[in-house]
Amino acid sequence: MIKVTVWNENAHEKEMPEVAKLYPKGIHGAIADFLSPNEDMLVRTATLDSPDQGLPDELLNDTDVLLWWGHARHGQVEDALVDKIVKRVNLENMGFIALHSAHASKPFQRLMGTPTGMLRWREDGDMQRLWVISPGHPIAEGLGDYFEVPQDETYGEMFYIPQPENLVFISWHPGGEVFRSGCCFVRGGRIFYFQPGHETFPVYYQKEVQQVITNAVRWAAPKAPTHKYITGFVKKGVLDKNAEWPPKP
Amino acid sequence: MIKVTVWNENAHEKEMPEVAKLYPKGIHGAIADFLSPNEDMLVRTATLDSPDQGLPDELLNDTDVLLWWGHARHGQVEDALVDKIVKRVNLENMGFIALHSAHASKPFQRLMGTPTGMLRWREDGDMQRLWVISPGHPIAEGLGDYFEVPQDETYGEMFYIPQPENLVFISWHPGGEVFRSGCCFVRGGRIFYFQPGHETFPVYYQKEVQQVITNAVRWAAPKAPTHKYITGFVKKGVLDKNAEWPPKP
Amino acid sequence: MIKVTVWNENAHEKEMPEVAKLYPKGIHGAIADFLSPNEDMLVRTATLDSPDQGLPDELLNDTDVLLWWGHARHGQVEDALVDKIVKRVNLENMGFIALHSAHASKPFQRLMGTPTGMLRWREDGDMQRLWVISPGHPIAEGLGDYFEVPQDETYGEMFYIPQPENLVFISWHPGGEVFRSGCCFVRGGRIFYFQPGHETFPVYYQKEVQQVITNAVRWAAPKAPTHKYITGFVKKGVLDKNAEWPPKP
Amino acid sequence: MIKVTVWNENAHEKEMPEVAKLYPKGIHGAIADFLSPNEDMLVRTATLDSPDQGLPDELLNDTDVLLWWGHARHGQVEDALVDKIVKRVNLENMGFIALHSAHASKPFQRLMGTPTGMLRWREDGDMQRLWVISPGHPIAEGLGDYFEVPQDETYGEMFYIPQPENLVFISWHPGGEVFRSGCCFVRGGRIFYFQPGHETFPVYYQKEVQQVITNAVRWAAPKAPTHKYITGFVKKGVLDKNAEWPPKP
Repeated sequence: MIKVTVWNENAHEKEMPEVAKLYPKGIHGAIADFLSPNEDMLVRTATLDSPDQGLPDELLNDTDVLLWWGHARHGQVEDALVDKIVKRVNLENMGFIALHSAHASKPFQRLMGTPTGMLRWREDGDMQRLWVISPGHPIAEGLGDYFEVPQDETYGEMFYIPQPENLVFISWHPGGEVFRSGCCFVRGGRIFYFQPGHETFPVYYQKEVQQVITNAVRWAAPKAPTHKYITGFVKKGVLDKNAEWPPKP
Repeated sequence: MIKVTVWNENAHEKEMPEVAKLYPKGIHGAIADFLSPNEDMLVRTATLDSPDQGLPDELLNDTDVLLWWGHARHGQVEDALVDKIVKRVNLENMGFIALHSAHASKPFQRLMGTPTGMLRWREDGDMQRLWVISPGHPIAEGLGDYFEVPQDETYGEMFYIPQPENLVFISWHPGGEVFRSGCCFVRGGRIFYFQPGHETFPVYYQKEVQQVITNAVRWAAPKAPTHKYITGFVKKGVLDKNAEWPPKP
Repeated sequence: MIKVTVWNENAHEKEMPEVAKLYPKGIHGAIADFLSPNEDMLVRTATLDSPDQGLPDELLNDTDVLLWWGHARHGQVEDALVDKIVKRVNLENMGFIALHSAHASKPFQRLMGTPTGMLRWREDGDMQRLWVISPGHPIAEGLGDYFEVPQDETYGEMFYIPQPENLVFISWHPGGEVFRSGCCFVRGGRIFYFQPGHETFPVYYQKEVQQVITNAVRWAAPKAPTHKYITGFVKKGVLDKNAEWPPKP
Repeated sequence: MIKVTVWNENAHEKEMPEVAKLYPKGIHGAIADFLSPNEDMLVRTATLDSPDQGLPDELLNDTDVLLWWGHARHGQVEDALVDKIVKRVNLENMGFIALHSAHASKPFQRLMGTPTGMLRWREDGDMQRLWVISPGHPIAEGLGDYFEVPQDETYGEMFYIPQPENLVFISWHPGGEVFRSGCCFVRGGRIFYFQPGHETFPVYYQKEVQQVITNAVRWAAPKAPTHKYITGFVKKGVLDKNAEWPPKP
């Protein structure tokens, strides 16, 4: 059972009537709706305007894969929460999926170490075509050579990310831009960035987008039981399997 | 159900009494014995001395993950068979696991494009300690920070491989060598090289080695339905979803 | 001084009048013409129709960076020559630059281990825009955020290469395709694939294309004196610096 | 001319008589002494106890490659300075070389996005053998298959870094540890981590160590003129080369 938490800043839904109409349950609710029927997933949602910004320790520590949608409230997310998320990913193998404008979110920027908030964009509602560059990758399961999102915000390179361990999608935009729109990073846990999903278009209701996110949750789920991370002084001795760990002071 | 085929050149078992005694069913048989009880695997074996060198098209095309053990008969494997294996991996997403001296096998060398047969070695029967460098990786599932093989052939760098997409293990040898002993490569299918397993030691009976190979089979199993690879002339047209493919002559 | 050899199959130039008119000295000659003025380069050319297919051992072994243009005669290149080129790259750190349709050349396919001949293409003479994805990379020196080739053959994904160690360019094509058009691979030596350069367009006379190829030659030049590759049995002993190598039989 | 700045927290030198004796000019002075004779380098030093923690904007903005040695004062480095360093690397292509215990420094941790402070260690003064894993890499220039540091602090995996774009060295330690001791990362600028250099041993006086650091400075020097990073709204238009950038409000 993969324990999935879908986090959303939930701001546009409350402030922009057209977004409220498009996503009456919020973007988080729309994502939870298509993930929940999967029998291998337990799906919960969390929003910035809840206590503990939606992620009390009990929930965060019980989350296998955290999805993150944010846009207008990145700055409000508390650094202490970001610290916890980053630690969960780096040391406890939690998966993290950054959606669309979460490229500029604090957790994603911290995990990457680069100014991932920087890229080109325009809100013309153009289509985009996402080409599959890694046809054998689990995140590409069930897709053809490419798929198209009929209307979305356009993102364009240069996207300031470290080179992904695997690049799954490259997007083609009619305005002349390209974008690395599906990027896998491996730290302790697994991180996926997926570009589609502007709040004013029904992107998360599209079958292929739902397929990719569903695939990504399964890919990002922790694959090894939580590694008990250790550090500190070590006792020397090639074959001394009985060395105490951690050493007593 | 993962369809696993364990291929072995099966030469030492027939020519060296101590190997025959250690592996009465052959190395392939020993590996099949610990894989078969897994309910998600259908395990078959194949040997060089069988018709079609053990891999008639019906079997190869029905194999999801091919394990390969070879040492003294690399040169006898027919190039036409190597071509088929390489195509299965590159274009049809079959997994390939090269064990121990299969570093110098034809399929592995062809898939890597480098002289992977080159490395340091000595047959002293020393222990080796395999450190886990990617603790969140599925192939490290169930292991601690490291495990040790009590006696094995020693391999040492420089190992002429492309840089692995993920390095899972680095081995420490008491003679002063290190070795990249668990290497993941992603092409269309997934490739894993795993260093332990000299024919004169009971390596494949060791619990941790069996765990790694079992994990590797699951990791290497095709994750996306076979991609229908296509190529050739394309019709121009941004939004022409009805373009014929492949184009009629 | 970087010793550069520009190899060309030189077939279209002899068989197609419009190519002969466009490249009166051959594509190899056009490339040599813009590389030669660089004071840090010694540039020579070689063609398939010369003795030893243009690359006698004296020349190949004296080459630091080999550029390769081929299209219609891939099959005529002898396997023994390919073996030598691949060895020079893998073990003696020679640089190799595959230009345009050399994606399907024997040396490039062998070095990659994948069916690099496969990709989409069409010969419409469309423009392409090459986006710089690695702005700090030496191959991007002197370029802006992107540059455009006014007319060229269009290539499109899926391009069956291993994931590049560095992806420098992604191309945007007006017909809806994207392509990884500048790809760096590191083996012993360095390998660069660069997509522009169909024989019927004056691509190699374009300033930006010349800049990229010039940069790539400098990047691909061997950076460490030829490594004396060794292999074989090793003597055990952590601190025995006097161990003979290779060991006497 | 590569403008090199060697930064050192310069604490042990002032507080520990044996370190002061070993490095009378400080570790920064010892490093500057062997780098300065290179005609292609302009070398300056900086220490934590200077104004602006040694790195006023005039110096930082005039630095091509920043070397960093820190151990006991990581916490004192101001976040505002770290921000500037990280920006210089990510967006302005400055090189950054983290030496020894700088694995736990603020700039390196921020650039990596992982808890790089975590690893095994012991201060036994054991030797270490550094194996060259990338023999063609410029940082390995002039080295053999391996070299040894006679006495140093031992570091051991698991080292919590993202997988390096290139792994140049793996260290073997007699106590049974291995360590990725020479790691290349590419962001906008180039980052190198190099493990040797405990303050109580004369490591920086060793010829091979000096060779590696000298090579690393040349490798890390910006290879493309500072990229003018841009972001923001874009005007649509495939072929509109005259689009204003940045757009006027």
